[in-house]
Amino acid sequence: MTTTTLKIADLQSRVEAIFRKAGLNSVQFEALARVIVAGERDACKSHGIYRIEGALRTVKAGKVKPDAVPVLDLNEGSAIVKVNADGGFANPAFELGLPALAERARKLGIAALVINDCTHFSALWPEVEGVTGKGLAGLVMCPSYATVAPTGGKTPLLGTNPFAFGWPRVDASPYVFDFATSVAARGEIELHRRAGKPLPEGWAIDAQGNPTTDPEAALAGAMLPFGGHKGAAIGTMIELLAGIMIGDLTSPEVLDYLGTTTLAPFHGELIIAMSPQAFAQGRAGDPFARAEVLFDAIVGSGARLPSQRRFAARAKSEADGITLTAAEMEHLDRLLDKGLDAVA
Amino acid sequence: MTTTTLKIADLQSRVEAIFRKAGLNSVQFEALARVIVAGERDACKSHGIYRIEGALRTVKAGKVKPDAVPVLDLNEGSAIVKVNADGGFANPAFELGLPALAERARKLGIAALVINDCTHFSALWPEVEGVTGKGLAGLVMCPSYATVAPTGGKTPLLGTNPFAFGWPRVDASPYVFDFATSVAARGEIELHRRAGKPLPEGWAIDAQGNPTTDPEAALAGAMLPFGGHKGAAIGTMIELLAGIMIGDLTSPEVLDYLGTTTLAPFHGELIIAMSPQAFAQGRAGDPFARAEVLFDAIVGSGARLPSQRRFAARAKSEADGITLTAAEMEHLDRLLDKGLDAVA
Repeated sequence: MTTTTLKIADLQSRVEAIFRKAGLNSVQFEALARVIVAGERDACKSHGIYRIEGALRTVKAGKVKPDAVPVLDLNEGSAIVKVNADGGFANPAFELGLPALAERARKLGIAALVINDCTHFSALWPEVEGVTGKGLAGLVMCPSYATVAPTGGKTPLLGTNPFAFGWPRVDASPYVFDFATSVAARGEIELHRRAGKPLPEGWAIDAQGNPTTDPEAALAGAMLPFGGHKGAAIGTMIELLAGIMIGDLTSPEVLDYLGTTTLAPFHGELIIAMSPQAFAQGRAGDPFARAEVLFDAIVGSGARLPSQRRFAARAKSEADGITLTAAEMEHLDRLLDKGLDAVA
Repeated sequence: MTTTTLKIADLQSRVEAIFRKAGLNSVQFEALARVIVAGERDACKSHGIYRIEGALRTVKAGKVKPDAVPVLDLNEGSAIVKVNADGGFANPAFELGLPALAERARKLGIAALVINDCTHFSALWPEVEGVTGKGLAGLVMCPSYATVAPTGGKTPLLGTNPFAFGWPRVDASPYVFDFATSVAARGEIELHRRAGKPLPEGWAIDAQGNPTTDPEAALAGAMLPFGGHKGAAIGTMIELLAGIMIGDLTSPEVLDYLGTTTLAPFHGELIIAMSPQAFAQGRAGDPFARAEVLFDAIVGSGARLPSQRRFAARAKSEADGITLTAAEMEHLDRLLDKGLDAVA
């Protein structure tokens, strides 16, 4: 197979060029390219260049503002920093708000960043790693489209609502997890449908609320939350905190607004940052050193820390570059050439 | 079966008398009796009068200070309020810190209450309901003993680490969930052992790390987290935030300190409170009204909101009193009569 290996900065330029040509301003295209290249760099293909088309489709449908300029509201005297994404993508809004969030969390011990009126299409680990990069622990969540039924119910009312957390480490990549609160991602059901394969048991119900392993029936029905009623409870918490509490759309409202799950969802995002130093102050033991004892024990017991495969891929990409197939290179060329005409 | 129905206040007096006689001061015995009576009132038997013996055993073993007086540290200028439980139970420490937590969260939007040096033996929903009772959303977590193996590992390194959340409702009981991050509670494995019944698949591994349905092998091995690696990740987050970050013991350290899982665990607790009003300020829609739309949809779809059985039992207890069996009444009498001599 013919492949091409690009430096990370080269792939960044290529992805930026695609979005620039599609009409995005530099605030938007730079941040967007960064998260997409980060996905590709980390061998997290589901959040890499594969996502460009969806972002372009959302621009073409008029559901995201290509020239949005996010606005920071420092909200002085509060532990809440807000960024209004101005109808653009979440990523530049997060980048704008992060320094103020970090400052507030260092000063007060705990602080929150609210992003409103944004389109979100990336993983949440870029946000988590932004927070851990400031030496803070971070908890990040957002709604999605209503595709998941609460346990015992028949109707998709929750999104796949990702829940992500990070803890900073001094001489290592951070402890980071980032997962959907559904059993499986919607894309995995779509892949089974295309391959003509039945779904594993427990992933989905049909439109009548009965368990199904038929991908078509699942797509017409609902996905199930991970871990039964516990996952449903966390998914509901995310609707409440990262939808309703921050004055932004819930997953059913997102689906009503878009009318489809093929465009990137429009909603808000909640990022909570905590300062381990501030919390641990006056207590025995350094929290970062103590966390290493726990991580060592976990790894020593045969378990893995989450995100380790991603960090290994990152190290390789940083040393050797990012390798794309000929088909992927052609795809990038086509997107650059055709712009918004490349998507339906 | 002979039963006795007591008014809630009468059961409170009886439980207080038991702890008073066992040497607890009023700060400790009043708060302790409140959470135990709340469990019994809510038909949550696993956290009702059943828990008295464990609390007494912990006092007798010298692992909790019966005359502890918790100390509030307002930590002005910060979003973190701290209470040192002085080696006593967590419950009076929480009651002491709650008003300051609520005031701080209303002012700053988000705030945290840290409880250090406490023995914790109750559910977390009393804390969650304390927060929702102030019109705030609450997120509560604490470690436990190391009895749960991270997915893929063989060694119990995590506790059953409960994770609890609440959202206040204007004309209804709050939305509250409170669950262990293990598949099952340790007590459920013990019940299977006593009944000579095999465990359901997926609950536990033996000391060699192999899946087991044998309760004896499970107790010598480790329990499993709920939802596979996702539950393990949440359990690990709780060790980091509610153990290490707050400068208190992790679940392995708790087990080292106690040397047994038969005493109530000594560690810390983290309570995060958020003001929906503060977060939603300047945005369209009332967050409490919008949450009701979500709850109505969940219930309308055939799913249940968590804690509803508990609230129904509470309403019945408040109207009709709490009914105990003759054996339960005798048990209370015996605990009052024998005090610490009633426990091993």
